[in-house]
Order: sequence, then structure tokens, then C-alpha cells
Amino acid sequence: MTQILGHNYIGGQRSAEGSVIVKSVDASTGETLVHDFHQATLGEVDRAARAAASAYPAFRALSAERRAEFLEAIADELDALGDEFVAIVCRETALPAGRIQGERGRTSGQMRLFAKVLRRGDFYGARIDQALPDRAPLPRPDLRQYRIGLGPVAVFGASNFPLAFSTAGGDTASALAAGCPVVFKAHSGHMATAEWVADALIRAAERTGMPAGVFNMIYGSGVGEALVKHPAIQAVGFTGSLQGGRALCDMAAARPQPIPVFAEMSSINPVIVLPQALAARSATIARELAASVVQGCGQFCTNPGLVIGVRSAAFSAFIEQLAGQINEQSAQTMLNAGTLRSYVKGLDKLLAHKGIEHVAGTAQQGNQAQPQLFKADVSLLLEGDEVLQEEVFGPTTVVIEVADQAQLSAAIHGLHGQLTATLIGEMADFEQFSELTPLLEQKVGRILLNGYPTGVEVCDSMVHGGPYPATSDARGTSVGTLAIDRFLRPVCFQNYPDSLLPDALKNANPLGIQRLIDGQISDRTLG
Amino acid sequence: MTQILGHNYIGGQRSAEGSVIVKSVDASTGETLVHDFHQATLGEVDRAARAAASAYPAFRALSAERRAEFLEAIADELDALGDEFVAIVCRETALPAGRIQGERGRTSGQMRLFAKVLRRGDFYGARIDQALPDRAPLPRPDLRQYRIGLGPVAVFGASNFPLAFSTAGGDTASALAAGCPVVFKAHSGHMATAEWVADALIRAAERTGMPAGVFNMIYGSGVGEALVKHPAIQAVGFTGSLQGGRALCDMAAARPQPIPVFAEMSSINPVIVLPQALAARSATIARELAASVVQGCGQFCTNPGLVIGVRSAAFSAFIEQLAGQINEQSAQTMLNAGTLRSYVKGLDKLLAHKGIEHVAGTAQQGNQAQPQLFKADVSLLLEGDEVLQEEVFGPTTVVIEVADQAQLSAAIHGLHGQLTATLIGEMADFEQFSELTPLLEQKVGRILLNGYPTGVEVCDSMVHGGPYPATSDARGTSVGTLAIDRFLRPVCFQNYPDSLLPDALKNANPLGIQRLIDGQISDRTLG
Repeated sequence: MTQILGHNYIGGQRSAEGSVIVKSVDASTGETLVHDFHQATLGEVDRAARAAASAYPAFRALSAERRAEFLEAIADELDALGDEFVAIVCRETALPAGRIQGERGRTSGQMRLFAKVLRRGDFYGARIDQALPDRAPLPRPDLRQYRIGLGPVAVFGASNFPLAFSTAGGDTASALAAGCPVVFKAHSGHMATAEWVADALIRAAERTGMPAGVFNMIYGSGVGEALVKHPAIQAVGFTGSLQGGRALCDMAAARPQPIPVFAEMSSINPVIVLPQALAARSATIARELAASVVQGCGQFCTNPGLVIGVRSAAFSAFIEQLAGQINEQSAQTMLNAGTLRSYVKGLDKLLAHKGIEHVAGTAQQGNQAQPQLFKADVSLLLEGDEVLQEEVFGPTTVVIEVADQAQLSAAIHGLHGQLTATLIGEMADFEQFSELTPLLEQKVGRILLNGYPTGVEVCDSMVHGGPYPATSDARGTSVGTLAIDRFLRPVCFQNYPDSLLPDALKNANPLGIQRLIDGQISDRTLG
Repeated sequence: MTQILGHNYIGGQRSAEGSVIVKSVDASTGETLVHDFHQATLGEVDRAARAAASAYPAFRALSAERRAEFLEAIADELDALGDEFVAIVCRETALPAGRIQGERGRTSGQMRLFAKVLRRGDFYGARIDQALPDRAPLPRPDLRQYRIGLGPVAVFGASNFPLAFSTAGGDTASALAAGCPVVFKAHSGHMATAEWVADALIRAAERTGMPAGVFNMIYGSGVGEALVKHPAIQAVGFTGSLQGGRALCDMAAARPQPIPVFAEMSSINPVIVLPQALAARSATIARELAASVVQGCGQFCTNPGLVIGVRSAAFSAFIEQLAGQINEQSAQTMLNAGTLRSYVKGLDKLLAHKGIEHVAGTAQQGNQAQPQLFKADVSLLLEGDEVLQEEVFGPTTVVIEVADQAQLSAAIHGLHGQLTATLIGEMADFEQFSELTPLLEQKVGRILLNGYPTGVEVCDSMVHGGPYPATSDARGTSVGTLAIDRFLRPVCFQNYPDSLLPDALKNANPLGIQRLIDGQISDRTLG
């Protein structure tokens, strides 16, 4: 049982130097919760970043096995958080208990998956070029490369995944796996949740003998800027709005030492419904697509915000079916009042646009979000109108009819970068529209066939990333094991005697890992 | 035999729309060469970027084998550039013919090494998680990931390596290998050289059937800004000054769509001389170190600009030996008049600083660079004085005496990010000073034992990178095969039928590459 103190977590201690109190809110009733959270002072932000920097040399020097044990201990602590915890998360987010239980499992599973990555050892990127003392005209020295953590990482969690993309979420897991201590900025939407999770994380750190300062957490609004600008911070992970993410990118780029920011921001996740699929299973697609649009009250980064099809009687019928489905969906409570306000604002923009018509959905009113369906003219995409490109976070989607196959490609060309794109089709469609896959590859991080983008599997092959503005750096992913790459950098050793090399690069290959040796991938040992 | 036209290279054509003429100069005599180079107009910059964008879909869709053949054809064309070419490079750079012949071999070798990488296939980063249809509570879809080129890359070459870090240098080679068309901004210091190399590259592109626009080159000053800001450009490679590199970073970060910049900028490459090494071979170290300082007139990114040792009679004697060696070195001609002006300015700053004394070297005068040795007080490092952190590009170095082992660590803590650090020592030194390797790992991209940082091997394990300000992104390298990673991003396919997947991800593994399949690295085929 956790007692909510509301103090910041700095270097293994709790700290409440500030007098500004922030409060958490019951997302369903709007009632203010009893707990007082102490907004971090600038001094506390500084101490948190320094604590992470102090922990860095010891933490990164730990074996991958030790870090794996730490991640597994976090996973066990998360799994042990019981009904009282689930109840507080539900209260702060209005998400149902089943969803939170599932997300808890996903969050601990993610920690265990990174433990596997650490033991597998490919994250080291170990490379060895043995000396060629007799090479002419010049001998080649022995050169070996592996990767180390960048240093302390600042993480900003998301409102919509209070566990999986938050305190002990994917950014924290991948940073810790890489050997980077973390300073986490607790999301104001679920501070009690954050405290429970931080306590679990600190218990795991103490139990596995991690250095104090390996994980730090600060409360409050307006503390993020000081954190991102702190010289000790070497990278930033963020999930949230385009405006918020871009602001962090701009701050990070303007530092005396610029640092990388991995911000996952805005995506409308187009779903392209192809003709043969409509002929075969129009009603099913309408039902499944509507379910994906309203799942979790549409509060997913991968929520399908755009549906594109080629004009035809079948596509018109499909729009009617989809409208019928949307009309049948119930209103749902959003994560917080601010999210609902943004949703209302987003709907108003769509309603006010003369190129967009409202097709289905009960007029928005009250304290819950009403699912909506709109239809927009294709010219909005072709001419680059920003209204369609902006994610409306919530249970709504916009249908677009294109004239023909050529205009479909042109419309896709008009899209900004996305996390996902989905093709719904039969094999005959994919043969006829074979230009779509290479085109979409240039626009998105993940392409799905005959599925729905909501639901992001945590695995080696997942890409939860994509070209701007879906993320700030298309080379990263914030879900899946490749996420660790964002926080690693290579270091080369030249002419080092074996005894002084890190284990990953020693001749005897004591870690038993795959390495690129003289141009060949192998787990062999050397002379 | 190449005729110098001085026209820009755009989409496989030559273009000279502008009326601004820029001229190349004989680096030894200051004489203006006859050729007229037409500075690209804004319209031409736009067309060059668009030509690269037009080439991108076709170029990235080519098999890795086809791209490898292109790189090998470039290598052959470079090797075939004969004495007339070497003479013009020497004329534009004042570098000796032997050096240019060697650099030509390095540049073609680099192209061939990337061809090997393309055939090896690890650059794909292929990952497969097979479907788990029976998993509870939810089945897992089939998920597969590989990497594709980011899109058109703008490359800015270096003055000091007119071949290996220029038109067909490492940035161009790694971008082309990644499937990214290139727009190269010719360096104003060697435009005739650039034209010879661009012609070779275009011949190779035509001979191997590459799309027009796979390589473009523009002349002139002030054209870089328009290039970096062009919406078609998706990444930037740069080698040069801190000021120039940072300006490009700032421009790229301020774009509507920010893009990554890989700028290799400023490094003073500390050499730490340890006590037992001094006892064993002081005179040899002094001789070898002086040779490294003046090699190529000190015009290397990895030139040793700082020498650190622990105060002792032996270290004092070593400084005298080093002074003697520096006094024996001859003046040399620099790459161009601007480089010499910068060198003189850098020396004047050191001479004017009251914490720095001049130890050896003929007073700087005339048209050549005089090798110099300075000694600085350790407080300059401990207190973060910027004068020592700024690279003085040329044949000069600064010695620092630290009081003891603890102060040595403190001094290293005071350093900014570096490309390299070097330890000169005996085994007993490395045991006594075992804290140095982990400390230096946090500061540099490459650590050398008992070698000298000048001379950068092109191989899989090389890291020519490091924390800011050595580079703008410590996660990259601009030399060695890992350089390709900078220009790749992952894409995930969910639930794709085998026939629609790229070859790298097909069940039958037609490319015969290593892949991460269900968490295990293997070259096996799948059901």
C-alpha cells in the first residue's frame, strides 16, 4: 500500500522545497483529489538532473545482466500493483479497469522484453576489425566498436497511456536499458498514478542495488523547459501534442550543446479502403473501422482519423454503413477536461470548414465525447489544407472520396508524415494498386494490411514512429526494442590490449554475443 | 581528359543560369585559375533538390546489388583519374601528389567497402516477428521491419580532404549506399577537383543505369542555406568549422519539418602521456607526436591539439624534447589563404592569453604555416576557459601539466566532446590510471592506445564522431560503414502477404542475409 506524499524523487530521496501545490482530478467527476503534489523548484530540477548525471558513470558501467535484473524487478513490482492502484489510475484517467490491467501487463512485459534485448547483446552493436600488421603501404591497427548510453535522459509521459507511455513506459524502459538514468516529468493528468509507479521503480532499484539517481521524477507544470535545457540532460523522450513536442525540439536545438529529441506527436493514420474489399465485405469493414475509431474514446496515437476510398456506388454505400455504425456508438468520458476541450475545438474547426460536411454523430455536448463522422473534399488534401492534417484527438474520423486511382496517389502525396497507414483490400486490389506500398513507405512508419492501426504490438519489429510531424525524428521508434537505439552512441577502441577492453569486445567473447568480425557476423572467439 | 565547364550538375544535365562567377585559386601561388564556375541561382538550387527528390523513388527501389554496382563503378572511375587530375588537386590544395594519390585510393576503397555492406545486408536491419494466431488474450499479427533511405541528402564537403571528405567522399558514399540521392555543394577551395570527381560520378551513374538526379552538384557561396532549407532535403552531411556546422544545424532545426544534420566540426584530440611511458621512451614519443602535429600541415580533424601529462622532472624533460622537435619542423603551405588567416588568428589568441606561454616555433610570418608549441595552465581547463577548447586548425599544439592523478581526471572532465583521445602508456600506467578509459568514453568517439589520432582507418569499427562540438550528433560517424545508419529509417509491415514484402523480409530470404527472427539472429528461411 502506497502513501501518496506528492514529493519529487531526487537521487533516491524525496524533496518538497516548493510552495506551489498541484492537484490531481477525478476524470469522471471533475472532483479534486486530496493529495498535494509539490511542483519542483528550479533548484529541484537542477538537483534531479545532477542526480541522474551522478548515477550515469556507475549505472552505465553495470553489466547488461545487472541492468536486465533491474528491469525485471521493475516488471515484478508493476505486476504486484493491485486493485487499489488500478482504482486510482481509473479515477485519474476515466479509463476502464480492464484496460488498465491490460496496460499494466503491457508495461511490465515491455520491461521484460528489454531485459531480453540486454541479454541478447545485439544492442551493443559490437564490431571488431583485427589488426593487419603486414598490410602495405600502412599496417592496420586493431579497431573495435560498441555502443554506450548517451547519458541522462529526460522523459515526458503521455496522458493517454498512464502506464505504457508514462513513468515506467517505453521511453523510460529503453533509456534504462541503454544505461541512461532518467528524469521523468510526471504528467499532470495522472500524478497519483505516477507516484505509485515511481515507488515501484524505486523499490526495484533499491532491491537490485542500482545507484541512487538512476530514476528521478518531478511534478508540476512549467518545469519541463528547465529540464530540457539542463546541461546534464543528453536526450529527450516525449509523447504528446505537436505543439508541445515541437516546443521541446526547438529548446533542445537552441541549447549551447544541442541534444536529440524523440517526440511522438501528431498522426491521422489514413485507412485506404480498396474496391474489391468493399465488394467482398463492406459492412464488416464499416463495423470494424467504427470500432477502431471509438476504441478507448479515440484517444490513441494510431486512431484512424482519415478514411480514403475511390468514388463508386459501393464506396457511397460504405460511407452510409460507416455513418450508421458511428451513430450507434455511445459517448465516452475523456482523459480529462482539457482533452475534451481540445476535442470540441477540433470538431468546431471541422464543422466550420466549408470543404467538410458532417455525416454522422450526435451533436457534441455535455461532459462526454460524442463519436463523429465527417466527409471532406479531396481538394483539401491536394491543395495542402492544414485542417485535415491536424489530428483531432478523440472518437472522430473524416472520409475522403478520390476520383480514381491516380488521384488516390496524389492524395497520399499530399499527406504529412504519419505513424501508420492501413490498406484494406483483397489480393486483386493489392495487384491493381501496387504503387501504394512504396508510396506509403515514404510517408509512414508502419503499413498494415487488413487490420486496424489501434493496437501497437511491443516486439522487435514494431515501428511506432514516422516522418514529421508524426515524430521529430523518423529514424526512431518509441515502441518495440529498436527504441533502445535512440539512446546509444558508438565508441571505438584502437590498439587496446584485450584485458582493457569491455567484455562485449574481448577476444574470448565472454558475453557469447553476435559480433561483426572482419566483415562477418559471428559469435566466434578470437585468438 | 576532363574539360572544366563550371556549370552546375542538375538531374543529369549541366546548368549555368546565373551570372555570378566564382573562381578557383592556386593554393601555393595565390594565382587565379582560368575556369569560370557559375554560382547556382536559387532556381537552380531548387531544381537540384527536386531532381534528387525525383530520383529518390526509383533509386531507393533498386536492389542493394544494383546500388553496389553503382558504387563500384564510381570507385573504378575514381581510380582511373590520372596525373592530370592529381595535378589539379595539388594545385587547388597545395597538398603533395603522394597524399592525393593515397587519398584517391582511400576514396575509391570507401566506395567499394560500402558496396560490401550493401551485399552483406545488415544495413537493412531486417527483423521478423511471426504471427501468433493462438496467443491469448489477443493474437499477434505478423510484423516485419527493414530500413529505407531517408530521402535526398545535402552534402557539404571539407577543404582538407578534397577527395575522401568531399564530392565522392564518405558522406556521399554512405548516402548513396543508403538509397538517398545527393545534392553536393562543391567546396569553393577545390572546384576544379570537384568537377573532375562529379564527372567521374556521373559517368558511373550513366554506365550503371542510375536515375538522372541521383547525384547533383552546385557551385557558389551562399547557396547552402537555400539547399538546407529546401523541403525536399531530408538530411545533411557536413564537415567543417564549428561556426559553419552549427549554422546549418540551426537552419535545419528551424525548418517547418526539422531534419537531422550530421556535422563533423571541432576537436582538439587530447593526447595523455603517462609516467611509465615517459620513463621508457620519452624521446620517441616526442618525435612521433611532433610528426603527428605537423602531418599534412596539421590540417586534420584529428590533429592532436592538446597534450596532457602529470608534473614531474620527466614530463618537463619531455616538453623540452617536444619543443626541440617542433623547432625542427619546416613551415608548410596551407590549403588556402583563408585557412592560413584562421591559423594566424588562432595563434594570436593563444599568444595573447596570459595563462598560455609560447614554448617553441618560429614566429609566424609569410605565406606558410609555422609549427608551434604552447604551454597552458591547467586552470584554463578546470575553469572552462574557451580558448583551449577551440580548435586551432594547423600545425600547433598546447601542453598542459596537471598536478597529480586526481587533477588529470578533473582536467579531462573539463574537456568538451572530442573525436578522439589518446593514451600513451605502459601496462603499468593503464593499471594505475584505470579510471581514464571510462572517463574518456564519455567525452570522445575513439580512444587510442599508443598510437596517434591522425590517420583514420575506413572500416566497420571506426567511429569518426563524438559528443558536441566534435559533431552535432554523437550517435553518428562520418567515417566507416556505420555512417550509412545516419541516412536510414525503419519501416514496419504488419500482416503483409509474403509476395508483397520487400526481398529483405520475404520468407525464403532470397538475399541470404542475417535477420532477427523471433528474437534470434539467423539467416534461416521461413515456412
